[in-house]
Amino acid sequence: MAVARSLRRTNPITLVLAGLLTFGFLIFIFSSTDAGPALHVPGARQLLKSKDAASNALSPPSLPFFKSTLKAGEKAPPPPVVHYHMNNVTNTPDPVGNRESVLILTPLARFYEEYWNNLVALSYPHDLISLGFIIPKGREGNAATAQLQEQIARTQAGNKRFASITILRQEDEPPLQSQSEHDRHAMSAQKERRAAMSRARNALLFTTLGPTTSWVLWLDSDIVETPHSLIQDLAAFDKPIIVPNCFQRFYDKEKGAMDVRPYDFNSWIDSNTAQNLASKMGPDEILLEGYAEMATYRSLMAYMSRRLTLLDYAGHWLTRFKDPGGNPKDIVNLDGVGGTALLVKGDVHRDGAMFPPFPFYHLIETEGFAKMAKRLGWSSWGVPNYFVYHYNE
Amino acid sequence: MAVARSLRRTNPITLVLAGLLTFGFLIFIFSSTDAGPALHVPGARQLLKSKDAASNALSPPSLPFFKSTLKAGEKAPPPPVVHYHMNNVTNTPDPVGNRESVLILTPLARFYEEYWNNLVALSYPHDLISLGFIIPKGREGNAATAQLQEQIARTQAGNKRFASITILRQEDEPPLQSQSEHDRHAMSAQKERRAAMSRARNALLFTTLGPTTSWVLWLDSDIVETPHSLIQDLAAFDKPIIVPNCFQRFYDKEKGAMDVRPYDFNSWIDSNTAQNLASKMGPDEILLEGYAEMATYRSLMAYMSRRLTLLDYAGHWLTRFKDPGGNPKDIVNLDGVGGTALLVKGDVHRDGAMFPPFPFYHLIETEGFAKMAKRLGWSSWGVPNYFVYHYNE
Repeated sequence: MAVARSLRRTNPITLVLAGLLTFGFLIFIFSSTDAGPALHVPGARQLLKSKDAASNALSPPSLPFFKSTLKAGEKAPPPPVVHYHMNNVTNTPDPVGNRESVLILTPLARFYEEYWNNLVALSYPHDLISLGFIIPKGREGNAATAQLQEQIARTQAGNKRFASITILRQEDEPPLQSQSEHDRHAMSAQKERRAAMSRARNALLFTTLGPTTSWVLWLDSDIVETPHSLIQDLAAFDKPIIVPNCFQRFYDKEKGAMDVRPYDFNSWIDSNTAQNLASKMGPDEILLEGYAEMATYRSLMAYMSRRLTLLDYAGHWLTRFKDPGGNPKDIVNLDGVGGTALLVKGDVHRDGAMFPPFPFYHLIETEGFAKMAKRLGWSSWGVPNYFVYHYNE
Repeated sequence: MAVARSLRRTNPITLVLAGLLTFGFLIFIFSSTDAGPALHVPGARQLLKSKDAASNALSPPSLPFFKSTLKAGEKAPPPPVVHYHMNNVTNTPDPVGNRESVLILTPLARFYEEYWNNLVALSYPHDLISLGFIIPKGREGNAATAQLQEQIARTQAGNKRFASITILRQEDEPPLQSQSEHDRHAMSAQKERRAAMSRARNALLFTTLGPTTSWVLWLDSDIVETPHSLIQDLAAFDKPIIVPNCFQRFYDKEKGAMDVRPYDFNSWIDSNTAQNLASKMGPDEILLEGYAEMATYRSLMAYMSRRLTLLDYAGHWLTRFKDPGGNPKDIVNLDGVGGTALLVKGDVHRDGAMFPPFPFYHLIETEGFAKMAKRLGWSSWGVPNYFVYHYNE
């Protein structure tokens, strides 16, 4: 990009400004001194050229403060007014070329260094990426926060720094004290756990989404391996909501070698069986995936991968690894999505799509989100042969 | 407040900083230069005392830019990290004393100078108020934007200026080209109109709500008269969601004098009749209030005012003005709320409560919002004898 190249030849002040300005933000600016007609700045690139821009003190509602540059006795300029034209906020198959801003949101219960290293290794321009974390109250949350802060300090001091980082500490402790894998997946506990997770996702989303956010990447804190080009690859499909297949690496004792297995069962195509189950449920009951006692016979994306051979059905299909084939460009239309890694166009969320903590068509959290998005007119898609990997404890 | 008093004795630079800092924002700040341990600043009042605060460059994800204060050749500090403790964001019956930030959100179709004058006359400290507007695309939206900008420029240059102002211009035109009162209220058009309004409210809410927003006041652009102490009065009830009675002044030809009449019929207590109607509806049908052809026999807050005598039922009750009595401190628990003026605790929205553009329990927009909030565990309340007034064209 010509602008990016020319920036590298300019002085450090301009570079600093550029890093902050070129989030892909497309704004109008009022002339702050004479309060006269608006200065129209239809794109961030033009913003950089504007002499007036740097002398305006803009402050959106969530801005805690900015440094005053007034001399003693100087009259303060009028407080900031920011004017956004929503149709200038694009989300295209070429987000890098179009300098589209990405907000990566992570509900963080435990901190894994592998998660952070994978995040830092993402090849999407870091000056276009803002990060948002929400961390529960309590001892475990404190530990995760401390570890996160340590890594942030290291990364932000270097040249792979992100545009901005927001950390929210929740008022509440997580509903389950034990976070071991077995406990977390017990069917009886899953509803409460996912309701709490929904509220955390909503708080994070509602407070960090901006008028200029082109894409939101939901990335769980236990996703430790993705292709570096994750954002570009998923955005290239140009779908409102798109989810890769979430697998897990494990050591196969029989084979004496590492292998992969499906991990996230929340991405699926609905079935008549599941619909019939739902129709007999009370208003507060929910359908859950992956339990023998509630066989939904939905088509799970986890098993659409060409990597697997289906063996037997026990609530979910038992599988055997087949081969590493399958076209990573194949996509399927989904009715439910998982949230371990999930790319969403900003417009979907701005329309009102959130994560229902209550049963919504007998679905909650990310699965309820897909249903809510559908009610808003947005479709969900999955990429069965494109993989991200979950931590294995 | 001691801090506020002491501020008035300090110099203008401090005052400017104070105006920007004391949104009631409660934050942690990372030391930006050495990327070392976090500097704990549990309250905005302490933030003012902190020498480090002003030298930190904080930038939440929605910040378009801020002015660089680097000298040529100086090394740029690491990009901003903001750390919010959600349990420090209070919403109490004494929001002024506790310096709680208020976000006033207005979907703006037409601009009325009376609306703006009433807004400016609100006695809540303006340095704690951020404003957000969303304006449709098209000719009418352009005209409204121009009129709004003119008033903003005047107000923000004076000493009643607000903390910050965000204006969003929508991608879409409003669904109905005609905005005359008769057209807007035709039953067949109401569903489409309110679905579009819901999307506008959501876009405005999702992009302007911050981690430190204590209260959200929804205020329609055709509300031209409220008590100046509206925010304090409603907050004093300490309810998650609270709505005053929305009336309209009109000239009574018979009496040859001005009188008042109920205007907004969306605040109500549910009825068995309405529940039975809903149970027979298809999944995409909605209940609407105020139409003879859909008599719900809900208890409408509009008619709970002691000011009125009920006459006859014709979809809604016909009424006659009685007397100006009634206790403005009386409150009632509601199942549906209107949005012409509506005070909501920030936590309710952060939990995920939005305005469903789709039928949600056969309700949409603000009525659906009240139902969704209820599913999230938050209750709605009305103040039948406390009035705001709608424009009369």
